[in-house]
Amino acid sequence: MLEFLFNAKSVAVIGASHDPTKIGHAVLENVLGTGFRGKIYPINPANAEIMGLRCYSRIMDVEDSIDIAVIALPAKRSVEILDECVAAGVKCAIIVAGGFSELGDDGKALQNRISEKIKGTRTRIIGPNTVGVLFPYSNLNTALTPKERIYYPGRGEIAFISQSGALGLLTMDSITEYGLGISGFVNIGNRADIDESDLMQAFSEDSHTKSIMIYLESISDGSKFYETLKRVNLKKPVVVLKTGKSEASSKAASFHTGALASDDRVMDGILKQAGALRALDEVELIDYGKVLAYGKPLRGKRIAIITTAGGAGVVTTDLLTSNEYGPALDLAQFNEIEIAEMKKATLPFASVANPVDLTADGGNETYDIILDVISRSENVDGIIAYALPQTPKIDTGIVDILGRYAKNKPMVIGVIGNRLAKDVLRALEKEKIPAYPSISRTVKAMKGLHNYGTFLDRREIS
Amino acid sequence: MLEFLFNAKSVAVIGASHDPTKIGHAVLENVLGTGFRGKIYPINPANAEIMGLRCYSRIMDVEDSIDIAVIALPAKRSVEILDECVAAGVKCAIIVAGGFSELGDDGKALQNRISEKIKGTRTRIIGPNTVGVLFPYSNLNTALTPKERIYYPGRGEIAFISQSGALGLLTMDSITEYGLGISGFVNIGNRADIDESDLMQAFSEDSHTKSIMIYLESISDGSKFYETLKRVNLKKPVVVLKTGKSEASSKAASFHTGALASDDRVMDGILKQAGALRALDEVELIDYGKVLAYGKPLRGKRIAIITTAGGAGVVTTDLLTSNEYGPALDLAQFNEIEIAEMKKATLPFASVANPVDLTADGGNETYDIILDVISRSENVDGIIAYALPQTPKIDTGIVDILGRYAKNKPMVIGVIGNRLAKDVLRALEKEKIPAYPSISRTVKAMKGLHNYGTFLDRREIS
Repeated sequence: MLEFLFNAKSVAVIGASHDPTKIGHAVLENVLGTGFRGKIYPINPANAEIMGLRCYSRIMDVEDSIDIAVIALPAKRSVEILDECVAAGVKCAIIVAGGFSELGDDGKALQNRISEKIKGTRTRIIGPNTVGVLFPYSNLNTALTPKERIYYPGRGEIAFISQSGALGLLTMDSITEYGLGISGFVNIGNRADIDESDLMQAFSEDSHTKSIMIYLESISDGSKFYETLKRVNLKKPVVVLKTGKSEASSKAASFHTGALASDDRVMDGILKQAGALRALDEVELIDYGKVLAYGKPLRGKRIAIITTAGGAGVVTTDLLTSNEYGPALDLAQFNEIEIAEMKKATLPFASVANPVDLTADGGNETYDIILDVISRSENVDGIIAYALPQTPKIDTGIVDILGRYAKNKPMVIGVIGNRLAKDVLRALEKEKIPAYPSISRTVKAMKGLHNYGTFLDRREIS
Repeated sequence: MLEFLFNAKSVAVIGASHDPTKIGHAVLENVLGTGFRGKIYPINPANAEIMGLRCYSRIMDVEDSIDIAVIALPAKRSVEILDECVAAGVKCAIIVAGGFSELGDDGKALQNRISEKIKGTRTRIIGPNTVGVLFPYSNLNTALTPKERIYYPGRGEIAFISQSGALGLLTMDSITEYGLGISGFVNIGNRADIDESDLMQAFSEDSHTKSIMIYLESISDGSKFYETLKRVNLKKPVVVLKTGKSEASSKAASFHTGALASDDRVMDGILKQAGALRALDEVELIDYGKVLAYGKPLRGKRIAIITTAGGAGVVTTDLLTSNEYGPALDLAQFNEIEIAEMKKATLPFASVANPVDLTADGGNETYDIILDVISRSENVDGIIAYALPQTPKIDTGIVDILGRYAKNKPMVIGVIGNRLAKDVLRALEKEKIPAYPSISRTVKAMKGLHNYGTFLDRREIS
């Protein structure tokens, strides 16, 4: 589904330009600079060559089938040129320009002309009012922000569908902080054709995608969204950042994308019913997306905590066993054999109650022994482990150890600090072990795994 | 108050050592390596010299008055050596060793001996079970973690009192991420003498301190804490991270520091009554501490939002005008003159309703014009501005502009992203403008200013 997007073989950039202040310049530069291995066709009647590529006057002049045509022209001109795209059999036109339904009645009328023009044709539309798409597995980047201003994520396992373009770009830039990648990004914009549900369905069938993040200010089609979400979430967990909690924000959203937001309680109900997580901001969206891609669903509530910083264990317990960030989970109770095994490996000062507090004496090797006991335990459903290189016996060598046990049980890692901690975070990211730079984010991630595990349990019972 | 801590002139390290695996080695290295300009006296009968300093056998041999003696010896030996410290007239002994009240009845008895020994003397105690203190303005660092493993904050305006040592160190390492500094750090540990209330009082009288962060698992003396907090918070806003939301975490805390946690609802009531903010984790503690040190109290609820990314404005509105992170605030309503002034400076696509969305065309200069209108407006109580260098006309030059307006009105900056965004965050930090790397953290900070402004209003009325 939407094969032309996920595995595009040819991209035309209509409005490609030598002029660095033009969007058609930045788009072509990103298409070229990301190493797209298909054919690239700049379209601009004023040039014979751009960036070393032969430039065509019109899309019909290209003697090749075109999977994607990025239309980087003003609004009205974009609608006019669409006729040529349809005539040329373009599979997908990405209409960048704003100035459509978000600008009131005239804009809506203009947008309706897009829908009319593609009716009954094989041409599909992304946008208008979109910053473009990014598909790292085919090295396709049609985004309009130059690489000097933003880091684009590399290959990963999280799909990202965003109604907002700018927030989509900012979120992608944020995603890269510790090296996280994505399977694909689409800014759906005003959704004259392809909408969030179409893409959710497409990503659910994509072999690289393990979880799906969606940013929405409004729903294109409520029942389609609900039915798609219910089905997709069973296969690939979905996280939704949906605004509209207050009247003020619904109004702000309508200024922004022109769509009317629905009642927030309905949205909340839909997400709960479908078992999808709701994120409050872009960081929660990324954090939940990551844990659902990398982690195992948490089936049960009994969590073991292991730390070298007692206070981190106490704060974790506080947030985990109260109703912050989702329903309370429990501290696992170890049995006597387990306690005895752990006692053997630790100094008298250490606590092998839960949280297991190894104190500053704890090192990579002690973690190995303790995690072996905990991960085999039938009393433990999930593990929160802190990897804290501020103590002398812990270094990035702990990453391999954590990775081994993360395969057996739902596990989330907390890494607090800056000097050495950031290296540990990056190393964990490389191994696709879900790790977070604060206690709250660590606990939230575990509660995210619990939300998904509970949803799966409920589905299997019913 | 506690002058010997804030402006120590001389520090002895009892148990100073050549051996890098000894705590007395790391402590002396930190005291020396941070550039402490007072006298430094290593104490160890086995050596004549350590790290180029003359080493004394016993503290009584030092012919100088000692402000601080760090006792880096095992628990029992620390208690014995205390006699010598008292006899030598040491003003403050920092007892590093654990193995006291956190280890049950025997440990409690040992800790009681500390209290008995200093009764009626001029010697005060920090600890036992403490990682030490950091006072950047006097270049004093007695912490036990080497600088190779952790970044210690430089000079700043936030005081940090922590019951937990390890979490205190991790939090300090985290504080440094964008360059934030502190006015002082004390790990109070088991509090045989000096407690959180004494330090809160002392920091409230310290000219460098503008806000106070406190991490607590239990309260040393409830009514003393309440009375001190009420008084101090009027002068210097206080943020408290207090665990004990659930039975499980109270139990975890008692394993950790040996203190019994009180009823959480009582704690919540005390903080509300005293107008102090409650943080849920170490990041909230830092974020609130920063905004209270740098920002102006928000008196009123009408917030203007300015952004170049529409979606960031919508999510901000969502969190601001709902009950997430504290009571709902309002979107400011601009009057017609203000709207006309802003219209003149912006492109037709931009929205000058609130949120003001300049779109990708917005640049440093437009911000200057819009912020001038907004900051003069009688319809606006506070401003959230996004500084997003992903768009072509915004760069670190925006920092000076934001700084000018941050002087007039309560203002919080959001900076989302990674590639250029982190530089903007660091530049804002240098100018002491409160800025945050996510939408949630930006909104929380503004609600923190509202909490404090509301408290001041209430006090002035009553």
